[in-house]
Amino acid sequence: MPAAPSETARRAVLTSSANPLIKSVRRAVRRGGLTDAGLVVLESPHLLDEAVAAKIPVEMTLVSERSKHLEDAVRSKLPLRVLSEKLFAEVASTESTQGVLALVRLDPAPLDAILARPGPVVALDAVQDPGNAGTIVRSAEAFGAAGVVFLKGCASPFNPKTMRASAGSLLRLPFAANIPPRLLLDSGDRTLLAADASGGPLPEANLKNIVLAIGSEAHGVGPVLRQAAQAVSVPTRHVESLNAAAAATVILYEAARRTEVR
Amino acid sequence: MPAAPSETARRAVLTSSANPLIKSVRRAVRRGGLTDAGLVVLESPHLLDEAVAAKIPVEMTLVSERSKHLEDAVRSKLPLRVLSEKLFAEVASTESTQGVLALVRLDPAPLDAILARPGPVVALDAVQDPGNAGTIVRSAEAFGAAGVVFLKGCASPFNPKTMRASAGSLLRLPFAANIPPRLLLDSGDRTLLAADASGGPLPEANLKNIVLAIGSEAHGVGPVLRQAAQAVSVPTRHVESLNAAAAATVILYEAARRTEVR
Repeated sequence: MPAAPSETARRAVLTSSANPLIKSVRRAVRRGGLTDAGLVVLESPHLLDEAVAAKIPVEMTLVSERSKHLEDAVRSKLPLRVLSEKLFAEVASTESTQGVLALVRLDPAPLDAILARPGPVVALDAVQDPGNAGTIVRSAEAFGAAGVVFLKGCASPFNPKTMRASAGSLLRLPFAANIPPRLLLDSGDRTLLAADASGGPLPEANLKNIVLAIGSEAHGVGPVLRQAAQAVSVPTRHVESLNAAAAATVILYEAARRTEVR
Repeated sequence: MPAAPSETARRAVLTSSANPLIKSVRRAVRRGGLTDAGLVVLESPHLLDEAVAAKIPVEMTLVSERSKHLEDAVRSKLPLRVLSEKLFAEVASTESTQGVLALVRLDPAPLDAILARPGPVVALDAVQDPGNAGTIVRSAEAFGAAGVVFLKGCASPFNPKTMRASAGSLLRLPFAANIPPRLLLDSGDRTLLAADASGGPLPEANLKNIVLAIGSEAHGVGPVLRQAAQAVSVPTRHVESLNAAAAATVILYEAARRTEVR
């Protein structure tokens, strides 16, 4: 077992944008995906704390020399590279990082394992905006969902923006990634619902034991699931007047509310 | 009355980024505010259509020479400048404009007029993210709110990103801007509620005739309203587990649902 690096070594400031790790992290942030080593980039000390609390392996922390979290990072047991302020700014995509990035290994769950858990299953079908995708995962966890299925063509769960919008929920709630929609056509005894502004009214929908498909912001649920699903709509004053994440949140809230009432 | 410009004149392509109008629009988009002439920038043909449908005065349309909407724009009666593809890309903040920007004059409503209308009033108290602010306005319109009050320090209703997230709702639903929070302390017979993860449970809250304050993503509702308001929380599995717009949406849905049921 190698000796732990000295505090002096931990404080050494990296300045080169040619460093392979830095190049890989920057690419992951720009492209909205994983690093070359298959790690997820978490942007903020809050997400890092959530990862540690969820016992997710933290493979590296990258901290700006100017971050107010630097001393905590140096004292922690986590692997650390300190970056010059300029280099950190080249890597991070947002000002809300507070000078902290973490690289974690996060494995998706098998689809069957999610379908077997209690609670609604949420399927994201071509949801394009990572902010919406992450917000839906956050609401799914809040309302006791079994897990979230990211179907092929949807925003990536590994996009740092999806992670940020999930506010840590992706670190706790099981999710499946890159699943072909047809695999949801036989979901055992679960009822397949599709959120759709032209669907039947939510108050009349059966929300027990469901797979809830949420479609793209512009085109709704795709053809494979649409023809097999019961369409459900949130009653509103205007057709198509809810954001995709807002519609998903309301349906999941309503499912949880009825469970409490029963 | 001057003669209408010829079709040839309407098709003339602007290429100079030094053009004062272009500079002003670019600044408005970058800063997230109004143009020098006090106009709101709408980014997308969809928002332009919504403005026309809502009878909002369209003072200018800026269309990329490569936009598939160019021929429609040339044939329309709206004021038009065609921009080179390069110049248009310098001005627009998003790829989802489809090559169309519109400048409209949009007046906020007086606070009293909003408070006098039927339905819940939504007050945005330091909500920082324009995407969240716009999504809340969209949900507010969907669930029959009287209007939305943008308090001082909140994301601007005139930020093109707020407009985009509202999906046109800001063009129809009355909103007040830059209002000091203390002006909501005496809202006639309305009950002041504050969405707060540590508040009383939503099922027990009285949602008739309310002003619903939504706070910042990080710190919640500010001190002025917090001490005067009844705090209400959406029941979830985890404390603070909902996005600000998701929490607002659920409370407004619940208020509308109870009105329907009654």
